[in-house]
Amino acid sequence: MFNAAIKAVDVVLNVSLSRRTVLCSIRHYCKKSSKKLRVSEALEGSDVGSNITVEGWVRSVRSQKDHLFVHVNDGSCLQPLQIVASSELNDALLTFGSAVEVTGCLKQSPSRKQPVELLADQINVVGGCDTLEFPFKIKERHGLDYVRQYPHMRCRTNVFSSMMRIRSAASAAIHSHFTERGFIQIHTPVITSNDCEGAGELFQVEPSGQTTEPDKNFFSVPAFLTVSGQLHLEVMSGAFSRVYTFGPTFRAENSQSRRHLAEFYMVEAELAFTQSLEDLTKVMEDLFRSVTEQVLDRCSEDVDLFHQRVSPGHRVGSSWVLPGINSTVFGHIDLLLTFDLQWGCDLQTEHEKFLVKHCGNLPVFVTDYPYDLKPFYARDNLDHPLHTAAAVDLLVPGVGELCGGSLREDRLDLLTARLAQAGMEDTYDWYLDLRRFGSAPHGGFGMGFERYLQCILGVDNIKDVIPFPRFSHSCQL
Amino acid sequence: MFNAAIKAVDVVLNVSLSRRTVLCSIRHYCKKSSKKLRVSEALEGSDVGSNITVEGWVRSVRSQKDHLFVHVNDGSCLQPLQIVASSELNDALLTFGSAVEVTGCLKQSPSRKQPVELLADQINVVGGCDTLEFPFKIKERHGLDYVRQYPHMRCRTNVFSSMMRIRSAASAAIHSHFTERGFIQIHTPVITSNDCEGAGELFQVEPSGQTTEPDKNFFSVPAFLTVSGQLHLEVMSGAFSRVYTFGPTFRAENSQSRRHLAEFYMVEAELAFTQSLEDLTKVMEDLFRSVTEQVLDRCSEDVDLFHQRVSPGHRVGSSWVLPGINSTVFGHIDLLLTFDLQWGCDLQTEHEKFLVKHCGNLPVFVTDYPYDLKPFYARDNLDHPLHTAAAVDLLVPGVGELCGGSLREDRLDLLTARLAQAGMEDTYDWYLDLRRFGSAPHGGFGMGFERYLQCILGVDNIKDVIPFPRFSHSCQL
Repeated sequence: MFNAAIKAVDVVLNVSLSRRTVLCSIRHYCKKSSKKLRVSEALEGSDVGSNITVEGWVRSVRSQKDHLFVHVNDGSCLQPLQIVASSELNDALLTFGSAVEVTGCLKQSPSRKQPVELLADQINVVGGCDTLEFPFKIKERHGLDYVRQYPHMRCRTNVFSSMMRIRSAASAAIHSHFTERGFIQIHTPVITSNDCEGAGELFQVEPSGQTTEPDKNFFSVPAFLTVSGQLHLEVMSGAFSRVYTFGPTFRAENSQSRRHLAEFYMVEAELAFTQSLEDLTKVMEDLFRSVTEQVLDRCSEDVDLFHQRVSPGHRVGSSWVLPGINSTVFGHIDLLLTFDLQWGCDLQTEHEKFLVKHCGNLPVFVTDYPYDLKPFYARDNLDHPLHTAAAVDLLVPGVGELCGGSLREDRLDLLTARLAQAGMEDTYDWYLDLRRFGSAPHGGFGMGFERYLQCILGVDNIKDVIPFPRFSHSCQL
Repeated sequence: MFNAAIKAVDVVLNVSLSRRTVLCSIRHYCKKSSKKLRVSEALEGSDVGSNITVEGWVRSVRSQKDHLFVHVNDGSCLQPLQIVASSELNDALLTFGSAVEVTGCLKQSPSRKQPVELLADQINVVGGCDTLEFPFKIKERHGLDYVRQYPHMRCRTNVFSSMMRIRSAASAAIHSHFTERGFIQIHTPVITSNDCEGAGELFQVEPSGQTTEPDKNFFSVPAFLTVSGQLHLEVMSGAFSRVYTFGPTFRAENSQSRRHLAEFYMVEAELAFTQSLEDLTKVMEDLFRSVTEQVLDRCSEDVDLFHQRVSPGHRVGSSWVLPGINSTVFGHIDLLLTFDLQWGCDLQTEHEKFLVKHCGNLPVFVTDYPYDLKPFYARDNLDHPLHTAAAVDLLVPGVGELCGGSLREDRLDLLTARLAQAGMEDTYDWYLDLRRFGSAPHGGFGMGFERYLQCILGVDNIKDVIPFPRFSHSCQL
């Protein structure tokens, strides 16, 4: 059997393979003797008195007569670890920005500035840094506009590395929030043949170097980058009741504004057996609060850095974000009762700002929009003559629209009529199937993840809250 | 101030807005009187004796003289909840596939088949289901090939809904695995101007309806869908030491095979201060084991369904996957010592199968590949004349290559020379910067998420482990 297998492989592949030369060693790994710690672990202090090794990047070097003080950061937290060494360990390569491995004994620090420090026996510079060429200078505070010019380097600044830790913590919090509440995560597709919003501004996808001739499409049909996972979530809500997706979405919008990106992240959720907008706003508010609480809990130093350096006063001005979060309740506005004339025009940025301000700079849910402004899937409130759809937006201070959602039209006859009116009943026949077979009242919403980060941190430019921003005329790296 | 604000909005937007009509009510939500439970919660049994409401879809209806037995599933788990009702509650609309709300008292079941059952006072059919038109039939077991024809409906079958719960649990396990180990999650971009693998088979992206003329690119440069987040992770590993990404990647491969998709998910990790392939294989094995343990723990019934119906014998044949996972260790093969002639050709599927089989159908790490076969970023082992790169693949039974990784070339001179040889030193000047400023030895790997699912479940066709498969000539929904 074994020889036959070898022979088969030999024949097929013409590779000389012999039993003698096959080594299939099963190894057991053994622990290394030295204890490697991350900076965050060392700062916890439970290893005081131990010999440890820390690896990271030099944030500052201060040389005194006998001693050398080096601050090393490895990205595990905002704070660096202070290294104290004999000045004999100094090295021309030991500069701001260099990569080092440091071994020594962890001690309690005599200074109040840090809980512990590392008395180094050995400092090994594994990668030097030409400080003249390096775009960031020691002890200089570079503005966000400046660091944005270096997309491959800006993670090495304090502010942007804090941002990335906050983004990662918020992302983890979103996943655990939904998982704990029994939602199933759905990887809705990036490439899709439908246009959920009907809004245009789509990116089209074809193999590189090929034209987009209709009869030669790679997928046999024109294919686009998704603008929303909603319709795919609706499919899945018909089996799992509660589903969510969290991933990239796209708009081919020719804008370089502080508010728009061509690629951005969206959290979307869909809930079956949902009968009212109130059911939805509860889920939206719960998401906002619980994720924010977790971020403030896990990244308090990083958040403080933003509130001190990037958006001074944000903490004070937006008490609803910070510890008071448990005691505040978002505002609710019925659009119908608010704008009593000029009915039919959509909310503009100025309206949004006004409404938020009017509600005391608190987040505010705005409900019941003119039917004709909303896409085909929004549920008809059947409230002629005003005629509204059961849609809701969440507006927040400084950002405007953070979330948008609606009940979905679950009534087959109404949905069919609306699709027919738009000439889309064939394209969306599969969508009508969802109402033909075990339809349940349902609704859902999406939250822009970058706008969420801007909102809690007070960051003005959306390009500063995403690792690699993409917008018209810019796709660096 | 307030009037001025109103006036400003009026002027800008020509909307008649008056103080009288602005309602900004702050509402407190109150709990509804009836207790809604999901099926999984009801089955736990702690609410026996309580009045509850359950919502879901009918999996079977059995009508006896006095009683009606209905099985309701809501996707929260594989098992349905048995409803027992007076036959007076029967309804022509109460059929297989219909959506229902059921209220009644939760009791211990006299039968051993289920722990509890719901004695219904009320059964409300909220959405009927035309069973003649519905593609799935009651009590029939539909094969995966059949259900694959209904991408918008297949989540309503037991097998596919189990798959989606497993996929969701595996995804959550991946995030918590990395978070617990101090990795920062990076949302690497989908749209990119570089081609990490240099492999061709890229999708290009432009706004819909526009040509791909070089001087009219939306992003000013040609832009593609990512084939890997590795280079972007390398940027971030230079600040956070440990980073990962988990998202969609793309290949414009003209293949309809059981092994390939145009859009698939990849987990990628990058670790700074990594000196050996052994450091990497430890992380890869740890990931595989901990995620699999969590999936088996959270979704045991769903996994059992696969091992019974879809891949009988998988449990037995792959004892390394199941509970023995703690006691087995993956195999290691040095490619250099294995194939002693015909050096220089890459491993083909047949080689992979042979190696896995030879190691007792265990996962096996294959290390040290011919240098010329590996991309520019792989670290040169400088072992002339054989000349290998420090790369590693993880091969697993039934699937072949599951993971691929390497140490990265961190030496500026070697990397510059290799890029220059390929004429790419200008394009990758930013990448060379990573070695100019605080370079650290580092390495990383990627794991195909769909292949991982195929591997643990014994699923033959990759299209059956992703919610909405995309491949050449197919982009449904």
